[in-house]
Amino acid sequence: MLVFRKVQSLHCLKCVRQRRNCSSVAQDLRKNESVARGEKTNSYQVPHSDHGRSTAARRRRYVSTLFQNFGQNQPKDLSSGCRSHQLMLYNDVVAHCHPGGLHLLPFGQRAMDKLIRIIDSEMEAAGGQKISMPTLAPAEFWKKSGRWESTGDELFTLKDRHEQEYCLGPTHEEVLTSLFAAVSPVSYRRLPQMLYQITRKFRDEMAPKHGLLRGREFEMKDMYTFDVDEQSAMRTYEAVCDAYCRIFDRIGVGYVKAQGTTGNIGGSLSHEFHYPAKVGEDTLLLCDRCGLQINKELADGVVREELCKEQGVECRLTETPAIEVGHCFYLGTKYSSVFSATYTDDAGKVRTTHMGCYGLGVTRVLQATVEVLSTERQLRWPAVIAPYQVCIIPQMEGFEEELYFQLAEEISDQLSELPGLRGEVVIDDRTQFTIGRRQYEASRLGYPYILILGKKALQKPSLIEVQETSTGETSFLSREQLMNLMSTVKTV
Amino acid sequence: MLVFRKVQSLHCLKCVRQRRNCSSVAQDLRKNESVARGEKTNSYQVPHSDHGRSTAARRRRYVSTLFQNFGQNQPKDLSSGCRSHQLMLYNDVVAHCHPGGLHLLPFGQRAMDKLIRIIDSEMEAAGGQKISMPTLAPAEFWKKSGRWESTGDELFTLKDRHEQEYCLGPTHEEVLTSLFAAVSPVSYRRLPQMLYQITRKFRDEMAPKHGLLRGREFEMKDMYTFDVDEQSAMRTYEAVCDAYCRIFDRIGVGYVKAQGTTGNIGGSLSHEFHYPAKVGEDTLLLCDRCGLQINKELADGVVREELCKEQGVECRLTETPAIEVGHCFYLGTKYSSVFSATYTDDAGKVRTTHMGCYGLGVTRVLQATVEVLSTERQLRWPAVIAPYQVCIIPQMEGFEEELYFQLAEEISDQLSELPGLRGEVVIDDRTQFTIGRRQYEASRLGYPYILILGKKALQKPSLIEVQETSTGETSFLSREQLMNLMSTVKTV
Repeated sequence: MLVFRKVQSLHCLKCVRQRRNCSSVAQDLRKNESVARGEKTNSYQVPHSDHGRSTAARRRRYVSTLFQNFGQNQPKDLSSGCRSHQLMLYNDVVAHCHPGGLHLLPFGQRAMDKLIRIIDSEMEAAGGQKISMPTLAPAEFWKKSGRWESTGDELFTLKDRHEQEYCLGPTHEEVLTSLFAAVSPVSYRRLPQMLYQITRKFRDEMAPKHGLLRGREFEMKDMYTFDVDEQSAMRTYEAVCDAYCRIFDRIGVGYVKAQGTTGNIGGSLSHEFHYPAKVGEDTLLLCDRCGLQINKELADGVVREELCKEQGVECRLTETPAIEVGHCFYLGTKYSSVFSATYTDDAGKVRTTHMGCYGLGVTRVLQATVEVLSTERQLRWPAVIAPYQVCIIPQMEGFEEELYFQLAEEISDQLSELPGLRGEVVIDDRTQFTIGRRQYEASRLGYPYILILGKKALQKPSLIEVQETSTGETSFLSREQLMNLMSTVKTV
Repeated sequence: MLVFRKVQSLHCLKCVRQRRNCSSVAQDLRKNESVARGEKTNSYQVPHSDHGRSTAARRRRYVSTLFQNFGQNQPKDLSSGCRSHQLMLYNDVVAHCHPGGLHLLPFGQRAMDKLIRIIDSEMEAAGGQKISMPTLAPAEFWKKSGRWESTGDELFTLKDRHEQEYCLGPTHEEVLTSLFAAVSPVSYRRLPQMLYQITRKFRDEMAPKHGLLRGREFEMKDMYTFDVDEQSAMRTYEAVCDAYCRIFDRIGVGYVKAQGTTGNIGGSLSHEFHYPAKVGEDTLLLCDRCGLQINKELADGVVREELCKEQGVECRLTETPAIEVGHCFYLGTKYSSVFSATYTDDAGKVRTTHMGCYGLGVTRVLQATVEVLSTERQLRWPAVIAPYQVCIIPQMEGFEEELYFQLAEEISDQLSELPGLRGEVVIDDRTQFTIGRRQYEASRLGYPYILILGKKALQKPSLIEVQETSTGETSFLSREQLMNLMSTVKTV
């Protein structure tokens, strides 16, 4: 039985109406206490209330408040054998939860959110419409397509309290085609339809490894398209492949589009997108003469030298290990015929739609790009998805730190006014540590720009030390030069 | 065994390098075909390629291309007894997948994405950091807290291929506290830490009902906070409650913040956020004299007249059914002591953190606001989260439709230049239907503004019929007046 209990809170009972007053009281209390404790509340605490602070001040971010840089606290299992995973674990970008199940910590989440914004904009530009499907996929759908059995142990399955069976969707061909079937037949005028989602997917890998590269839970963008016939479906297929190219172009890390295998998904045509990297589990055959790019698995059935004969030259093939990050399939009527996803043509006749499906491993792209770019000791991000663009490190305590700190906040506010840098600047306020230590940590974390406010920053003319992570170069810039450089930064 | 198969595609093998050319070829093919079929490609087809189209043209959205308005195709089970769920099903905002598992279709997804942007901005302003935790929560964590047993059948559980047990997380106190424990002890200087995620949650409801209001899968924002002591935790608690108030203020639908019960989560203090509505499963006691707002469950232990005695007046209580959409808990050390989530104080002593947890039902807020605002036949959205702000309906075919259509596109382009309306305007290009039918459908879908381009639109002066859904008012405006009205629209 629940018993009434007198609520003790700084909030008054009417606070829905009067919360401004309540907050002010609380703020005053807080101020009094922190003043009494002799604390610098600005630098070490998340402000509990924003009243009385300027907009610029509210936007400031301090390293001490981030769930970050705990690397030193605990030994972590860094035996992965995969550089990006080690770096992401060590730097609190991800954390372990269960085998193949990782937490995305704030830095990882920010990078993923940016990646998702890129994907969303290109999917939408290509005509895609975003939806969310349930995670629990009824077994009946999967039995109907035959994949309940064929997928085997990789499928996570469960029964609900009514003994109904479900799997945790690894992909959603069955579920989405059933959804389309429920509104079928649609008019031919309404096709193509291109539906996609970005949601958690599940695969019970025998041996998950390399963090986000082969996990049992991962974020995936999956699109499903419906067309009137094969010719139209081919144009849709091409449009989505083009959108994928634009996504990878915007990320800016070199990738390969290769002819691929169709595997368990089925269908008759597929292309894969890869990042070449040593830890990759796929092998690509690339020919620098005819431009052939093909998954080795697919090529194994034929004599390799035959592959590009028709271009009139002999292939010169090299093998490259690669990480598969995207996959396009032309499905034909494989699923639409089973589930009756149909349309009416201009004569009113009901016909079967032609489908495509298109996967993009969001969390896998995230780590694969880091894998390609990073050095052994330093995380490097594609600039456009770096969690934060700028880290400002002011002089340590004991050296007129108030003046440096004030300058750091001033520069942070000024930079945050730039369209590309809103919310992208952090101040490393842990002034109990030397500049060197903080600089080392910032460099390890891969901020694209590190600004150091040392002695020269308070001299006349004021010079700020700027480290560009991508080039490794350091320069001393005036405020004006700094602003010019920073106004070129593009974020998403 | 995989056998090499010759790939038939419009794409050349080198298209990673040459895709612009490839696309142009494809576009020409498409143009030729559609010209040959005598089709108006602009209005009935998603463009397969964007080459040669202006930016404004690329941004246009046409109703015929949306996965929408299929209401007429199929009978749907509308026996819910809950207005918002019926309307959302009928209008293809959501669709059924399994009991308590719904698809969010494009309109629902767009509304949810906007809601998430509001929540993110307020959580971040309050000091929150976004993360993502795995869905699969290892059983060991839940056994350690005792909730594996106490939660009972509502927990979806499964075993992986190695016979390890997991539940699909309904909330994440155990998992997140373990994560914090893994970096413990943290310096007192790093507290408070406020971590949150917006992810899919699972609860095996005995009888799911009312669509998104009581589903088995739902999107939830859950935040977990760590403080040095109760006093500090209370300030954090207050800051998050304030952020909730700001979120609900921005959504703009009347809500109630009430003292609540702690239930299975535990802890000693809680507040709930409710939307008063007939279908709500909670009952609130509200007093208009002393401002008391309390969940009836919590008040049942005491004589009700006693409740506000201390304010010196007698309570005048009314009972109100309500939908719970948010819940704040002060947890104390309930979880942090079990999992050893600790910090070091300024004397270097290791101490237990004080926690709070804060839930917000994202999909539930979505439907609850629609439930409160809608009429029996018309969906109504809080303006700020409406999927699209404007629907333009040009004259039907057979009445110089090209001129009206051109005007519609021109107005759409002009409106889309307004900061608040980018991506927010759709043109109902289904000119095979009368204005009346399209107007009825648009009004049923709850676009905040419906613009009708009838005869007056092509007269001099040109007058556009504008329907404001929230007020039900219709007016005829000049282009200039229209732009003035529309420039006041705020979106997120």
